[in-house]
Amino acid sequence: MEKLTVVKVGGKIVEEQESLKQLLSDFSKIEGYKVLVHGGGRSATIIASKLGIESKMLNGRRITDEEMLKVVTMVYGGLVNKQIVAGLQAIGVNALGLTGADMNYMRSEKRPVKDVDYGFVGDVKEVNAGILADLIFKGIVPVLAPLTHDKIGNLLNTNADTIAGEAAKALAQYFEVTLMFCFEKKGVLMSETDDESIIANLTPALFEQYLAEGIISGGMIPKLENSFDALNAGVKEIVITRADMIQMGLGTKITK
Amino acid sequence: MEKLTVVKVGGKIVEEQESLKQLLSDFSKIEGYKVLVHGGGRSATIIASKLGIESKMLNGRRITDEEMLKVVTMVYGGLVNKQIVAGLQAIGVNALGLTGADMNYMRSEKRPVKDVDYGFVGDVKEVNAGILADLIFKGIVPVLAPLTHDKIGNLLNTNADTIAGEAAKALAQYFEVTLMFCFEKKGVLMSETDDESIIANLTPALFEQYLAEGIISGGMIPKLENSFDALNAGVKEIVITRADMIQMGLGTKITK
Repeated sequence: MEKLTVVKVGGKIVEEQESLKQLLSDFSKIEGYKVLVHGGGRSATIIASKLGIESKMLNGRRITDEEMLKVVTMVYGGLVNKQIVAGLQAIGVNALGLTGADMNYMRSEKRPVKDVDYGFVGDVKEVNAGILADLIFKGIVPVLAPLTHDKIGNLLNTNADTIAGEAAKALAQYFEVTLMFCFEKKGVLMSETDDESIIANLTPALFEQYLAEGIISGGMIPKLENSFDALNAGVKEIVITRADMIQMGLGTKITK
Repeated sequence: MEKLTVVKVGGKIVEEQESLKQLLSDFSKIEGYKVLVHGGGRSATIIASKLGIESKMLNGRRITDEEMLKVVTMVYGGLVNKQIVAGLQAIGVNALGLTGADMNYMRSEKRPVKDVDYGFVGDVKEVNAGILADLIFKGIVPVLAPLTHDKIGNLLNTNADTIAGEAAKALAQYFEVTLMFCFEKKGVLMSETDDESIIANLTPALFEQYLAEGIISGGMIPKLENSFDALNAGVKEIVITRADMIQMGLGTKITK
């Protein structure tokens, strides 16, 4: 199978002109087939605030009421996504911006209300990777916004990490997939206070050991659990790295 | 050649929930291959105003400065486009929302400043209809937002009538194209005061005659001149009609 790299970048990098330009240049240098998944939360919060709409967060997750859904549709699906697409086209990458509604490539269901009503937030139910794979084989580079739809008329806000993971898993039928998560550190660290203490290779066994020893903790745990889930679903390799290192193959590599 | 219908609808229809729903239902009933082109000016003006950005118009055309470009990118490329796409998916139409930057399907150049600086407005230079035709043959229905790009990194605001005309002309290589412009009247009228006085068929010869007689005047003239231009470039037929009549084949038919 041919190789495909799915790169997920957070909001901060794509929302500032200079860092976006650098990221797109680095991304364009990744060899072989590729997909870019982006966030946009900071811009959504700023635009919402200017429109007099309050951003409500709970456990780091956005509560998406009807007004906020309009904002994220504008910001994620329009402003951020299309600026990335235009920026990639300018450097010869044949990008195509997509939400889950486009070609029905990712269908979700509105999250059931239990203790918390997250509003118009979608849990992914179905990925139609065939149509994406067709386009990728033709040289198209999908740029995925963190929005899905329920196929009964509603767009739904969906976490960009989830979009990246679900797309990577579904595309693993067609490609040997590397899933790359970019964050502010160079990788998973042995010591939180030492930015150079990168764990080069991680496996489920090592993860359990580091977890027991307290080396890995906090917000990194769900990220890594998601990574193992993706590996179990057929993704070849996960890389956790910093955005400026995506074309170097550095950072933490996670394999089974 | 197989038939393709390109339908252009103005902002008002797609920006109100009820009329949008009816339009999408009518559009879904058009037989054969199809493309939808939409405006969104009213929403852009409202969102801009809420963001404290003044809408400047000249001769009915929007002046698109840097701030306004962000607004139209959000509103046309995000809010309006994706709501249409999700709405079509809900009724079984496999829609794909696009700006000209997506797959580089429509490249433009920033309009040169002569007497007026229209700002980030694009004049269409190149349409890559092949990739659109491929998708259409696979059952995908493109939904085109009134945005193009210059392939050097800038999105550009482009009139929706122009997008529809240029897409129709380029797709005429692959399909027998009917281009349908929706506006508030049932067609081109013999008498402005009689909404039922629809001219059923119009040709260049008849147009010249009606022009000389003063029957056709005002804003209809550039619309019709654009139509004849499209016919000369290979489009089979133009229909000028009201949005609620698109699946009936009524209105004014324009042929060579």
